[in-house]
Amino acid sequence: MPTSVLSLDAEHLLAQIQFLGAVGADAAVGGRTRIALTDDEKAGRDLVVRWMRELQLDVRIDRIGNIFGILAAVTESGNQRPLMMGSHIDTVRNAGALDGCYGVLAGLAVARAYRAAGVQPQRAIVIGAFTNEEGVRYQPDMMGSLVYAGGLDVDEALNAVGTDGTRLGDELARIGYAGDLEPGAIVPHEYLELHIEQGPVLEAEGQLIGVVENLQGISWQRVTVQGTANHAGTTPTRLRHDAGYVASAIVAFLREKVVGAAPDTTLATTGSLRFEPDVINVIPRKAIFTVDLRDPDEGRLQAAEKRLADFLVEIAEREGVKIETERLVRFEPVVFDAGLANEIQASAKRFGFTYRRMTSGAGHDAQMIARIAPSAMIFVPSRGGISHNPREHTDDAQLVRGAQVLLDVVQRRLAIA
Amino acid sequence: MPTSVLSLDAEHLLAQIQFLGAVGADAAVGGRTRIALTDDEKAGRDLVVRWMRELQLDVRIDRIGNIFGILAAVTESGNQRPLMMGSHIDTVRNAGALDGCYGVLAGLAVARAYRAAGVQPQRAIVIGAFTNEEGVRYQPDMMGSLVYAGGLDVDEALNAVGTDGTRLGDELARIGYAGDLEPGAIVPHEYLELHIEQGPVLEAEGQLIGVVENLQGISWQRVTVQGTANHAGTTPTRLRHDAGYVASAIVAFLREKVVGAAPDTTLATTGSLRFEPDVINVIPRKAIFTVDLRDPDEGRLQAAEKRLADFLVEIAEREGVKIETERLVRFEPVVFDAGLANEIQASAKRFGFTYRRMTSGAGHDAQMIARIAPSAMIFVPSRGGISHNPREHTDDAQLVRGAQVLLDVVQRRLAIA
Repeated sequence: MPTSVLSLDAEHLLAQIQFLGAVGADAAVGGRTRIALTDDEKAGRDLVVRWMRELQLDVRIDRIGNIFGILAAVTESGNQRPLMMGSHIDTVRNAGALDGCYGVLAGLAVARAYRAAGVQPQRAIVIGAFTNEEGVRYQPDMMGSLVYAGGLDVDEALNAVGTDGTRLGDELARIGYAGDLEPGAIVPHEYLELHIEQGPVLEAEGQLIGVVENLQGISWQRVTVQGTANHAGTTPTRLRHDAGYVASAIVAFLREKVVGAAPDTTLATTGSLRFEPDVINVIPRKAIFTVDLRDPDEGRLQAAEKRLADFLVEIAEREGVKIETERLVRFEPVVFDAGLANEIQASAKRFGFTYRRMTSGAGHDAQMIARIAPSAMIFVPSRGGISHNPREHTDDAQLVRGAQVLLDVVQRRLAIA
Repeated sequence: MPTSVLSLDAEHLLAQIQFLGAVGADAAVGGRTRIALTDDEKAGRDLVVRWMRELQLDVRIDRIGNIFGILAAVTESGNQRPLMMGSHIDTVRNAGALDGCYGVLAGLAVARAYRAAGVQPQRAIVIGAFTNEEGVRYQPDMMGSLVYAGGLDVDEALNAVGTDGTRLGDELARIGYAGDLEPGAIVPHEYLELHIEQGPVLEAEGQLIGVVENLQGISWQRVTVQGTANHAGTTPTRLRHDAGYVASAIVAFLREKVVGAAPDTTLATTGSLRFEPDVINVIPRKAIFTVDLRDPDEGRLQAAEKRLADFLVEIAEREGVKIETERLVRFEPVVFDAGLANEIQASAKRFGFTYRRMTSGAGHDAQMIARIAPSAMIFVPSRGGISHNPREHTDDAQLVRGAQVLLDVVQRRLAIA
């Protein structure tokens, strides 16, 4: 075990996770819902801000509502380029208690360790809670960190209209989190994000710590197949333009030929698919479905997109249907900072925790902040790979291990800074 | 052209089709909606009963609400085993004006021809309008004729609960069509049904009259695939149990391998398919879809069902999902009366109308009445094969040709009876 003047208050961290997890909770379902900029999410923000103030952090809110708690450095020069940690506290509907919150509260636990030891760091430490990571009500997701990194204009983001017709800027003002700090004003020297894996790999391989060295590229499209509705009993197969069959054949192709071409890295998912008119004895006139393609390598991701596009042309021609695609999201793969990843790995090793270098399958605020600062992530296992669900779970001992690694990496980075 | 004392009043028939088509019409959509036992369908029934009374037919209503208009024979013995014609006047939502109504009103046109000539037939003529052929609100469809033919107990049918929670028997009483005639009490000597094709075959081949000699067997199933919901970005393909992919692969298999095994006769359609939770970045936990299989040959229909069932076992095993099937409808193929079909063909030939022997792809009341009497159907072309849609259309000249054939066949059957 590494020796250190700083020690983690594991009980306090676990208690705060439980406490924040009770905000917006629905006992009947077992989950909690704090969709960005709702009253319940405001209650979560208020709690985190109160905890930041208890640690005597300087709390700053920027124009997109990102919350920052700043622990000042021992010297003024050390305040210029702080070490940033963070994640988000907004949730999907009926979420678990860990996604995002774990990273924010572990950041507070790091600050608490400094306070408890009465030590000021060489560089300032900033704990960020980024606005609207989940993108449930307002698109795009990871919005707060994207705006912060300069990838989306703040005014454009404030004008985003939600699924409920509200304007993001109005809701932000309504809950009292329209701050005046300009996004990006505090430039981090480096960025660390601790997160649950939200996938099954660490558990399946019995590893304790994930050293996240890169993040998959993501390509989301909506595909609309326009065929012809006709009677299921009277229309010979050769005269059909069956939008439902075409959509199904494309979904099967994605698995069998697109994933099949790079089975170790390319992922393809159709999560949403709808037929119109959706009647048992009517050949579907229309099918609308989504395609989620991911790969950590941009070249392979583009190859997957091309295989799909070629097949759409081929099957549209063969079946006499019209196929349109709309790009919803496209992020190139992100390669995290190798030095930071090595630091995480070395820390896990010193603690004696098993670990593996890995790719993040999900999107995270770290991928946005990586545009403006060296970044890396630490993962802990998710039971059954389940997330975005009340059954999301990581053992307390694992949560503590992840926070120990985070605290250790922070100490080392600041000691050598 | 055959010589005859009887002549069709084409104008009157076409006017009645338009008039009945205005009941329940929605000018904005261009269609009409007379779902069985609603107020609008009652208005349609009232109109048909009034027209029957204008022709001095004896109107009888049975316990399931089937309406019969009886033109008595010249002798009492001729009343015992009448010639029956009919179809239905209930509709789907936003229907055309022809499906079902054409057959009922052409039956009235036949009766009108007898009245105009002051001739009484050798056998009684009965025009039937069967309850709930469409099955939109109450299952099963073709209910009135099924009950009439003894295939479903009348009390069970009266207890059917609709999609809106109503009891069929209550709605029948509410609209005043709970009659006292026992279903099946009037046993037809033979049964003829004139109908639009609702398919594209006659139009595609340029034929004027379809001589319907059989009706496809129908197999409807609901298939439920139970997989595991997981994150689309973090779950390696080898660890997925993707209900959406499995459903899509089955739909593709239906076209490529089930229809592919008997492409000239077997039809397969998935009209309805739904994913749960239906979210872009979540691997579907569940997929529910329908399978509509049809074939005029019972052996081939069973072979298609078996191919599907074998594949369900295979893919459930391979993908680690659970698949359940629920049988919704199963009707064996119906072979119509060859003598009646030959009579229809001979009539078309005498008129100089091009014709083809064909299979009915859709279900019709005739398939139920065929259980208790020799039956056959006459088809006229449907433009674009479209039905169950405001764009359902058959040219007036074609509607008249079909009614001429019907009148001609009735005369010949009654002359030789």
